[in-house]
Amino acid sequence: MKKSVGIIGANGYTGSELVRLLAFHPNVELRLLYSRSNAGIKISDLYPDLESVCDLVLENTLRPVDILFLCLPHTESAKWLAKRLADTDVLIIDLGNDFRLSGYFGDREFIYGLPEINFSKINQANSIANPGCFATAIQLALLPLAKENLLKDVYTTGITGSTGAGQSLQPTTHFTWRNDNISAYKTLNHQHVDEILKQVNLLNKEEVELNFVPWRGDFARGIFTSSIIGCDLELETIYSLYKDFYKDSPFVKVSEKSIDMKQVVNTNFCVISIEKQGNKIAVHSAIDNLLKGASGQAVQNMNIANGWEQTLGLNLKPLAF
Amino acid sequence: MKKSVGIIGANGYTGSELVRLLAFHPNVELRLLYSRSNAGIKISDLYPDLESVCDLVLENTLRPVDILFLCLPHTESAKWLAKRLADTDVLIIDLGNDFRLSGYFGDREFIYGLPEINFSKINQANSIANPGCFATAIQLALLPLAKENLLKDVYTTGITGSTGAGQSLQPTTHFTWRNDNISAYKTLNHQHVDEILKQVNLLNKEEVELNFVPWRGDFARGIFTSSIIGCDLELETIYSLYKDFYKDSPFVKVSEKSIDMKQVVNTNFCVISIEKQGNKIAVHSAIDNLLKGASGQAVQNMNIANGWEQTLGLNLKPLAF
Amino acid sequence: MKKSVGIIGANGYTGSELVRLLAFHPNVELRLLYSRSNAGIKISDLYPDLESVCDLVLENTLRPVDILFLCLPHTESAKWLAKRLADTDVLIIDLGNDFRLSGYFGDREFIYGLPEINFSKINQANSIANPGCFATAIQLALLPLAKENLLKDVYTTGITGSTGAGQSLQPTTHFTWRNDNISAYKTLNHQHVDEILKQVNLLNKEEVELNFVPWRGDFARGIFTSSIIGCDLELETIYSLYKDFYKDSPFVKVSEKSIDMKQVVNTNFCVISIEKQGNKIAVHSAIDNLLKGASGQAVQNMNIANGWEQTLGLNLKPLAF
Amino acid sequence: MKKSVGIIGANGYTGSELVRLLAFHPNVELRLLYSRSNAGIKISDLYPDLESVCDLVLENTLRPVDILFLCLPHTESAKWLAKRLADTDVLIIDLGNDFRLSGYFGDREFIYGLPEINFSKINQANSIANPGCFATAIQLALLPLAKENLLKDVYTTGITGSTGAGQSLQPTTHFTWRNDNISAYKTLNHQHVDEILKQVNLLNKEEVELNFVPWRGDFARGIFTSSIIGCDLELETIYSLYKDFYKDSPFVKVSEKSIDMKQVVNTNFCVISIEKQGNKIAVHSAIDNLLKGASGQAVQNMNIANGWEQTLGLNLKPLAF
Repeated sequence: MKKSVGIIGANGYTGSELVRLLAFHPNVELRLLYSRSNAGIKISDLYPDLESVCDLVLENTLRPVDILFLCLPHTESAKWLAKRLADTDVLIIDLGNDFRLSGYFGDREFIYGLPEINFSKINQANSIANPGCFATAIQLALLPLAKENLLKDVYTTGITGSTGAGQSLQPTTHFTWRNDNISAYKTLNHQHVDEILKQVNLLNKEEVELNFVPWRGDFARGIFTSSIIGCDLELETIYSLYKDFYKDSPFVKVSEKSIDMKQVVNTNFCVISIEKQGNKIAVHSAIDNLLKGASGQAVQNMNIANGWEQTLGLNLKPLAF
Repeated sequence: MKKSVGIIGANGYTGSELVRLLAFHPNVELRLLYSRSNAGIKISDLYPDLESVCDLVLENTLRPVDILFLCLPHTESAKWLAKRLADTDVLIIDLGNDFRLSGYFGDREFIYGLPEINFSKINQANSIANPGCFATAIQLALLPLAKENLLKDVYTTGITGSTGAGQSLQPTTHFTWRNDNISAYKTLNHQHVDEILKQVNLLNKEEVELNFVPWRGDFARGIFTSSIIGCDLELETIYSLYKDFYKDSPFVKVSEKSIDMKQVVNTNFCVISIEKQGNKIAVHSAIDNLLKGASGQAVQNMNIANGWEQTLGLNLKPLAF
Repeated sequence: MKKSVGIIGANGYTGSELVRLLAFHPNVELRLLYSRSNAGIKISDLYPDLESVCDLVLENTLRPVDILFLCLPHTESAKWLAKRLADTDVLIIDLGNDFRLSGYFGDREFIYGLPEINFSKINQANSIANPGCFATAIQLALLPLAKENLLKDVYTTGITGSTGAGQSLQPTTHFTWRNDNISAYKTLNHQHVDEILKQVNLLNKEEVELNFVPWRGDFARGIFTSSIIGCDLELETIYSLYKDFYKDSPFVKVSEKSIDMKQVVNTNFCVISIEKQGNKIAVHSAIDNLLKGASGQAVQNMNIANGWEQTLGLNLKPLAF
Repeated sequence: MKKSVGIIGANGYTGSELVRLLAFHPNVELRLLYSRSNAGIKISDLYPDLESVCDLVLENTLRPVDILFLCLPHTESAKWLAKRLADTDVLIIDLGNDFRLSGYFGDREFIYGLPEINFSKINQANSIANPGCFATAIQLALLPLAKENLLKDVYTTGITGSTGAGQSLQPTTHFTWRNDNISAYKTLNHQHVDEILKQVNLLNKEEVELNFVPWRGDFARGIFTSSIIGCDLELETIYSLYKDFYKDSPFVKVSEKSIDMKQVVNTNFCVISIEKQGNKIAVHSAIDNLLKGASGQAVQNMNIANGWEQTLGLNLKPLAF
């Protein structure tokens, strides 16, 4: 029997992307698309690509479901939960950042939902804090080194698509401004740094310093990151560490070839490659920020928490071009 | 039991797009990726998005399969078939234009593979000529009017993504030139006009004249067309004709709202809308040129010819953004 | 001695583009940048490209100038003039559409500012109605035929960059939506049709019908149009008509080669080419919508009205790439 | 009297960009466009934006000129000079990298043409090695710190437009691949690192280590770089150093606001901003790779070497949008 699913904040980008994924997921039935601001409107009126894909209407009243995804602005998930104490049988997956650093809320313990390091905990969880987009791309690039205590100072630049800024109309998401343009934001001060370091420092014995400069890119989907790290190991050895670390991770591809961002767009994959010069390595990683960086990873976590194959509903046709 | 599939010319864009679709199709098994120029190379070395999706190696020797897709340059399909007479049990779907206008080849009769008008013939066919990309988008915009004998002079502009020009490196597909650029090509002289008129004139009693100007767009995937046509009917009546015509067509969406190209990118849908001023209407249509305009429609045809649900393997997550 | 210039509505796209042009114009001095909403702010704080180019601060008080450009939303120019009767010695160039169809306002007669047909009138004018962007591109494509009374039914598609929609943040100028997207708007109903027909019908004896479908393009600057027209003349003859018509027009290039939009971006040129099949021709034209389609043409008109070389300050380095 | 100019390799991107600049330069006359591969062709047939801008035909025979720009592939300038010993009266400006590191060739001493540090030498020079594009953007970001001996380890990411890869058709400049895509290349191994360090180490007493990862961007023009550097000074103090360093440099803008790449596209400006967190700073810089990164800087050098105002012919209208 299919599990019933509700999405709180279904009108946003990550919420609608969950609809795109779950509409075709074999083990679940979408039952509730919750939105205060757009109640009464068909989701396909907001997102016309969803016409003939999902007929549901956005609602602002709740109904019982087995699985609840929270797609709310940061700090809103905690407020929302405080008002509506969901039965602990309900699996809650929060796509915001309220529970990523400190995971307790009432009786619930939110597990950090990065399957590549927390698979067995997610498997037992009723509450999952889905990682941030840059946090996913950068952690997957760093964790195999952290496990070997090889990290110290990390210098990372990452670039993200406009969907990372959500659907609100802002000067920095105005087409005229953003087209063919590049800019930096939250330089050395992005909120994902703490999230990354928390996990990295669980593995790396020595305290890691992460210097991260995020850039806005002139594309809609995708994240590409390059991290420069001091490392004396042979490149071949480093690749072995990565391949071993991800040997049971179906969505992480460790590539010895040159990678590009678009090869993972519209998929749940993360692709990683490594290059070395002298005693420095550069680790590149790429994801689709709305999939492995948000809604795709949330579905992966849902699958794991339910004991289903983690790739279920995530065999997505790559965009490729 | 799954049917076995071979793709001739698997190294090109439409061939590789078939791989992306068929790798996850429940009723078929990809068994042969044929390519003379790239034999011995893994398809995922040419298209890195296919890593972890398809492990097959391109080959230049044939092996028996149940279903054969021909993804060859125009005029090459006929040559290829002339050399290798496939058993008539083998379903052949040709994505080139060799058999679109005149469908006989030896014992085989190629059925024009536009399911919205030829469903029952495709259902019985062992040979299918898959329509062209612009031909699909424009026919779907015109056929409901043709059925009512309402067409006379049609003025159409269409714009296509760079994938329509294939993978060869040309000045007009050079990024520096094409980025932010628009240009016309094959003005009033595109090879798809005859293909369109053949089908349109089967329905429309009066001879139709199609004046078509194709444009190159600064995007990779998609086709958008607008056709201006004299028409005295009320808009409401026209919409009724369209909705009735496509009532059994799961991949055609007739929309009374403003449409945009990106709402169908990475899907097999065609979306159509109509506007009226005075005694003129404009019919807009949009498709993904590699899916409903090529490989997606080919899979749809395969499904129909095999008696399967026509949407099988084609419930694709829209790109949306 | 330099003439003094004021720009009313200097904070918008066409206003700021005038600043970019006039900052380097040898015969004028920018003295007044007027803006109600942004008074007190440096123009270079709104448009950082203007730093080191123009140091002026936006003001909301007037001061005497020799030349006044009005860059106001449609209908606002007439209101503005009604309140502040400028001395008739002041040259007024209105970039809005208030005076394009009917040019009288008090003692002033606004001359339609398309230099290719109205050079001598502009030369005598103290009031100029600067043409619309699509209106410029389409008229320049049609006028040589109109002069020979060769127009009857015209079918035109045009595509425009996002700057045509101005600086306000709208869903259709949101980067996430517009990137890689194409859509139609104001189908068969664009406000420039009347403006075009007024001029065309002054030349063409027979009443012309213009069926125009505008598209939104996924680029910031530029307009490309294709018009289909019945025509029995030889292509060579048609080209002769065009070359003769534009023989004294330094900013119109009649090309017998394939043209593309980007070749005129960041210039004041219009490029036109013509193709023929059977008894139909297609006339393609391209301009930069902010230059020949707005601020560049306004400077050209200013030059002519002052008796200066019309190319003065308009020898712009093409973007090219 | 105007000086006569020749461009060797005028058919490439930097050569044609020189034509765009010099066609409107008040003190020079373009007399020779030299190209072996395209001799006999009008430059405007290769670059249609140059129609009505420059009528010259490419030639493969030399003629005497006062100033010679070499726009040849790397290593070709030295070969070219070896064959044709130009009179030492002729000013030679080489846009390749043959003389950037070691500047002697026969009687000629090539001065490194970064006006912000070598103005007085350039002023006396008859031979100038024009800096590389990334080298310009990164040096201008680092030199004020080097002068204060503040550099040690530098971590830089830079992104460049497709024009940086020239006009040859390559898989990485194919529109279908590059559109909406990001990738790294020459990681930690770019040829400009040595060029940068040579100049930086002339100022910085301590040996500097530059870890540079270049990215390919999905746009045609522009470079944006971010460099992370340890620094204990107050941000205000750092800004003072930069403003003081560039107080006589008309093309360098030190901005305390957020910057973006497009604000300098189609100009000869470099814009720099600095941010600080803890004891780390990030210095961002942006240029147009074909102007301040190549042909614009070459004209600036020509102006300085001739004793002309260095901005002559370089008051370019910014693209802005």
